[in-house]
Amino acid sequence: MVHGSDVRYGNFQLLKIKSIRGEGIIMNKQIDLNSDLGESFGQWEMGNDEAMLSIVSSANIACGFHAGSPEGIMKTLASAKKNGVTVGAHVGYPDLVGFGRRNMDIASEELIADVIYQIGALQGLAKAVGAKVEYVKPHGALYNTIAHDQRQAMAVIDGILAIDGDLTLVALAGSPLVGWAKGRGLNVVAEAFADRAYNNDGTLVSRKLTGAVLHDPELVAERMLQLVNEGGVISIDGQFTPIDADSICVHGDSPGALEMAKKVREIFEQQGIKVCAFTGKRCGS
Amino acid sequence: MVHGSDVRYGNFQLLKIKSIRGEGIIMNKQIDLNSDLGESFGQWEMGNDEAMLSIVSSANIACGFHAGSPEGIMKTLASAKKNGVTVGAHVGYPDLVGFGRRNMDIASEELIADVIYQIGALQGLAKAVGAKVEYVKPHGALYNTIAHDQRQAMAVIDGILAIDGDLTLVALAGSPLVGWAKGRGLNVVAEAFADRAYNNDGTLVSRKLTGAVLHDPELVAERMLQLVNEGGVISIDGQFTPIDADSICVHGDSPGALEMAKKVREIFEQQGIKVCAFTGKRCGS
Amino acid sequence: MVHGSDVRYGNFQLLKIKSIRGEGIIMNKQIDLNSDLGESFGQWEMGNDEAMLSIVSSANIACGFHAGSPEGIMKTLASAKKNGVTVGAHVGYPDLVGFGRRNMDIASEELIADVIYQIGALQGLAKAVGAKVEYVKPHGALYNTIAHDQRQAMAVIDGILAIDGDLTLVALAGSPLVGWAKGRGLNVVAEAFADRAYNNDGTLVSRKLTGAVLHDPELVAERMLQLVNEGGVISIDGQFTPIDADSICVHGDSPGALEMAKKVREIFEQQGIKVCAFTGKRCGS
Amino acid sequence: MVHGSDVRYGNFQLLKIKSIRGEGIIMNKQIDLNSDLGESFGQWEMGNDEAMLSIVSSANIACGFHAGSPEGIMKTLASAKKNGVTVGAHVGYPDLVGFGRRNMDIASEELIADVIYQIGALQGLAKAVGAKVEYVKPHGALYNTIAHDQRQAMAVIDGILAIDGDLTLVALAGSPLVGWAKGRGLNVVAEAFADRAYNNDGTLVSRKLTGAVLHDPELVAERMLQLVNEGGVISIDGQFTPIDADSICVHGDSPGALEMAKKVREIFEQQGIKVCAFTGKRCGS
Repeated sequence: MVHGSDVRYGNFQLLKIKSIRGEGIIMNKQIDLNSDLGESFGQWEMGNDEAMLSIVSSANIACGFHAGSPEGIMKTLASAKKNGVTVGAHVGYPDLVGFGRRNMDIASEELIADVIYQIGALQGLAKAVGAKVEYVKPHGALYNTIAHDQRQAMAVIDGILAIDGDLTLVALAGSPLVGWAKGRGLNVVAEAFADRAYNNDGTLVSRKLTGAVLHDPELVAERMLQLVNEGGVISIDGQFTPIDADSICVHGDSPGALEMAKKVREIFEQQGIKVCAFTGKRCGS
Repeated sequence: MVHGSDVRYGNFQLLKIKSIRGEGIIMNKQIDLNSDLGESFGQWEMGNDEAMLSIVSSANIACGFHAGSPEGIMKTLASAKKNGVTVGAHVGYPDLVGFGRRNMDIASEELIADVIYQIGALQGLAKAVGAKVEYVKPHGALYNTIAHDQRQAMAVIDGILAIDGDLTLVALAGSPLVGWAKGRGLNVVAEAFADRAYNNDGTLVSRKLTGAVLHDPELVAERMLQLVNEGGVISIDGQFTPIDADSICVHGDSPGALEMAKKVREIFEQQGIKVCAFTGKRCGS
Repeated sequence: MVHGSDVRYGNFQLLKIKSIRGEGIIMNKQIDLNSDLGESFGQWEMGNDEAMLSIVSSANIACGFHAGSPEGIMKTLASAKKNGVTVGAHVGYPDLVGFGRRNMDIASEELIADVIYQIGALQGLAKAVGAKVEYVKPHGALYNTIAHDQRQAMAVIDGILAIDGDLTLVALAGSPLVGWAKGRGLNVVAEAFADRAYNNDGTLVSRKLTGAVLHDPELVAERMLQLVNEGGVISIDGQFTPIDADSICVHGDSPGALEMAKKVREIFEQQGIKVCAFTGKRCGS
Repeated sequence: MVHGSDVRYGNFQLLKIKSIRGEGIIMNKQIDLNSDLGESFGQWEMGNDEAMLSIVSSANIACGFHAGSPEGIMKTLASAKKNGVTVGAHVGYPDLVGFGRRNMDIASEELIADVIYQIGALQGLAKAVGAKVEYVKPHGALYNTIAHDQRQAMAVIDGILAIDGDLTLVALAGSPLVGWAKGRGLNVVAEAFADRAYNNDGTLVSRKLTGAVLHDPELVAERMLQLVNEGGVISIDGQFTPIDADSICVHGDSPGALEMAKKVREIFEQQGIKVCAFTGKRCGS
C-alpha cells in the first residue's frame, strides 16, 4: 500500500485489495498511458513529443483540424514508430484558432465526413512511415460533447465504422459514450485523467470549479497507482470512487505536465505495473 | 476520316492512318476521359459533378487543400462509385483562397507530407463509400510546376511512393515529369487537354497567348478524335503534332465546358471509340 | 389597402389604418432593405451582388470569417459605393467551411477581438474604395445566438463600441439584443425577414417547422407592405402580429430569392414607400 | 571609436568619422529598433512579446495572414501601447501553415486587397486599445519578394496608398523597393538586420551560405554600433560597406535572439545613442 491510510480510502477498497491478495494471485498488472501529441502547427511548436514518446505507450496524434500540420504529424508518427508507441487518431472539430476546444453544433453528415477525413489522412501519413493507426480518440470539445451527446457520438461512431471497424475508440470512463460505442460493435477503451479530480459518481469535476485540476506530481502518481491497484480514486469529496479505465491520459505540454507524466510512469515501474498499449504492444518494464 | 482534308493535316498522318488500315487491323480504340470534381467547398458550389460523372471515366477529386470539404468530397466519391467512374486524388497546394493556382516554393518535406495527407484523406473517404483511389493527378499550379521542376516533382513522386506505389500518376503528356516518375517506378498516364492549343513541340500554348484556350465544342471534339485516331493534334501553327496521351482532360465548371465534354464523349461513341478509365474500368460503348 | 380583407387582418389594424388616414396625414413612409453580399470566396461565387445592389439600400458585407475574401469584398464594396448603397459589416464566427452557421461557444475575449478585426478589415477595404462602414449586422449562428445569449451579445456590443461607437447594430426585431445594445448606448435598427413566418409573439417560426420559410414572391411582397403600412404581419396562426422593424432583410442567393427581393422593392415603389438606408442615405423612388 | 582598429575598417570610415568630429558637431544620434511581434496563434505561443516591448521602439505586429489571431494581436497591441512602442502592420502572404515564408505568385489585385484587409484589421484592433498603426512592414517571403519584384512591390504600395498614404513603409535598405515607394510618394524607412551578414554591395548574404546569420550578441551589438556611428558595417568579405538604414530589425523568438536584442539596446544606451521610433515617438535613454 502506497497510501497507507485506511481512513483515506474507507472500507470498500481495502476489502477489495484483501480479496485479491488473499487469494494469492500474482497480478500481472498493466495499464496504458496515452498523451496528445503531434500538436505543433507549421512554425508553431507545442509540447515535447520526443520526451513524451519515451513515457507513454499510446500517442493520440493530431490530424490537422484542431492542430497538427502534415510534415509535423509525420515526424511525430515516425518518432512514435521508433519508440514502439502505438498511435491513434486524435480527431477534432475543424477549429484551428480555437484548438478544437469550442463546442460546435456541427451537422451529423459533416461530422461523419470530418472524422473519416482525419483518420484517413493520419492513416496515410502513418503508412508512409511504417506505422499503423490503431485507435481513435476525439479531442477537446468533441471529446466532451460526444461523451454525452448521442447525436454527435453516433456520427463519430459511424465515421469510425465506415473507415475501419477494427479501430478502437478511447472514451471517457463512465460516460454514456462507452455503451453507445460498444452497442454499435466498436472496441472501446475507457480512460481516466491523471491530472483531474473526480466526483463521487465517477464524473470529472468541472474545470470551472476549484480543485478540478491537480498539479502535484507525487499526489497524481499515487492516485494513478491506486487507480490501477484498486480500480478507483479518492473523489473530491474524499470518497473512494470506482473508475473503470484501461488507459490513463497524461499531458506533456508544459514542464510541469511532463514532470507529472514522468512521475506516473516511474511509480508504475517501481511497483511492477507494466505500461503497455491497450492493443498489447510496447509492454515496458 | 472525320477531317477529310489532306491539306489540313499534311502528308504525315494520312500515311500513318493508311498504314494502320492497310494492314486490316480491327482497332479496339479506347481513351480515358478525366475531369476535376469534388471542388465545392462548404456552402460554395462549383461545377456539376453529377453531369460530369455520366461523361467521364475518371474523376480527379479535390482533397481539401485547394478545394473540397469532407462532406462534399464524400458525396462526389459516392456518386462516382455509383456511376462506375474511377477516382483519383487531385492533390494541390495548401491554398484555398487561391484555389491552388498560385505557385508556391514549398519545401520538399512539406510537399511530401501534404501529398500523403491528401491522398490518405481521400482514401479514407473513398473506403467509406466502397470506392478506391486509383491514381493521383496534381492540381493547378502544382500540376504545372512539377511538369518541369524536378525538386517538387520528386517530392510528389516520393509522397505517392510512400503511401502507395500502386497509384498511377497522371501527368502532362510530353513533360519531363513523365520520365522522372517512370524512372522511379511509378505507373504514369500522360494526358492531353481537350480545350487547349498545342505548340509544334507538343507543349501547351501559354494561357497568356491568344488562342490558347479553345471554345468551340465541335472543333474540340474533332481534335480529340484526331488525337485518338492519329496520335496527335494540329498545332497552333497548323502542323500535325504528335501527343502521346492515354487520357483526355475535360472540364465541367461552366455550361460551355459541360457542353464541350458531352460533345467529346458523343463523337467517341459515334466513332466506336470506347471511353474507359486507364485502369481498365468502366468501359462504355 | 392591398390586402382587402377585414377578416384576414381582424379589427386591430383596420382601425389603425383608419386613424392614420382619417387625420389626413400625408405619410412619407420609408423602409430599409438589406441583404447579405460579398459572400463569394476566392474562385467560389455566391449570390448576385450586382443585381441585389440595384434593389437594396443597405449591403451587409461579409468580412472574411464565414465568407468573403479581400479582393471579392473590395469589388462588392466598390459596387455598393457606385450604387449608392450603404454598407455594413456582416461579422461572423471564424468558420469558413460551416459558413458561420454553426453555434460556437467562443470565449468573450475571442469574440470581442474577432468582431473588431472583421470590422476593421472591412473599414480598410471600404476606405480604399471611398466607402464607409455605417453599421454592423452579425451573421448566421452569431446573429441567432446573440439575439438571446447575453454573454455573447455583450461581447459583440463591446467589440463594436471599442472600434467605433457610431456604428449602428442591426438586430432581430423583438429580441432581447435590441434592449441590451440600446442600454449600452448603441444605435440599433431592428429588422424583419421578408421570407420568414412569425409566431404570435413576434418571434421567428423555427426553420425546423413547416411553413417557416415563405417562397411566394407575391405573398411576401404583400406581407412586407403590411409591415410598413401597419407595423406588423399576419402570424403563422393567422393573427396580426406587431413587428417593430426599420429594415427588411431580403436574399439574393438564388433566382427565386432574387425574384422575391425584386417583388418587394416593386410593391414599395408602386405604393409610394421609399426604400432608404436607415442611415438616411440612398432614398429611392 | 569602439572598435579601435584602423585596419579593421580601413581608411574610408575613419575619414568620415574625423570629418564629422572635426567640425565639432555634437551628434544627437538615434536609431529605431524594430521586431516582429504578435505572432502567437490561438493556443500556440511564439516569441516573448513582453520582453521585446521593453527593448524595441517599433513593433511589427502580425495581422492574421501568416501569423497572429485577433485576441492575441490585441493583447500585443495593448502592451505596445503601455510600453510606448510604435506599432506597424506586419502584412504577409495568406499562408498560415507556411508562416508566410513561401513565395507565392499572387495576382496584383489579390495582393492589394490582402494588404488593405490586413492593415485595416490591425487599425481596428489598434484603435480599440488606443493605439495607432504608424507604418507597414511586409513579412517573410513578401518582404523579400517586393524588395526586388516590381509588380508585387507596386501592389503593396498601391494597397498602402489606398488605405492611408500617411503610413510609412519599412523596406530593406539598399533595395529597389526604397526608390519605388518614394517615387509613389510614400514615406520610407530603410532597415538593416542586426543578425545578418552583408555583401560588399550592401545586399544581405543569402541564408543558404555559411556565415549568413550571426549568433554572437557581442559582435552583433558592436556591428550595430558601427552602423549607427559610421553608416555601415564590415561585409562578409571584410570591407566596410555603407548601409543607409534608419531602423534595425532585432528578433526575440528564441532565448539567444532575445539576448542579442538586449545587447544591442545596451550598447546603444552605453554609447549615448537614443533608441527612438522613426516616427519620433518613444525616445529612450
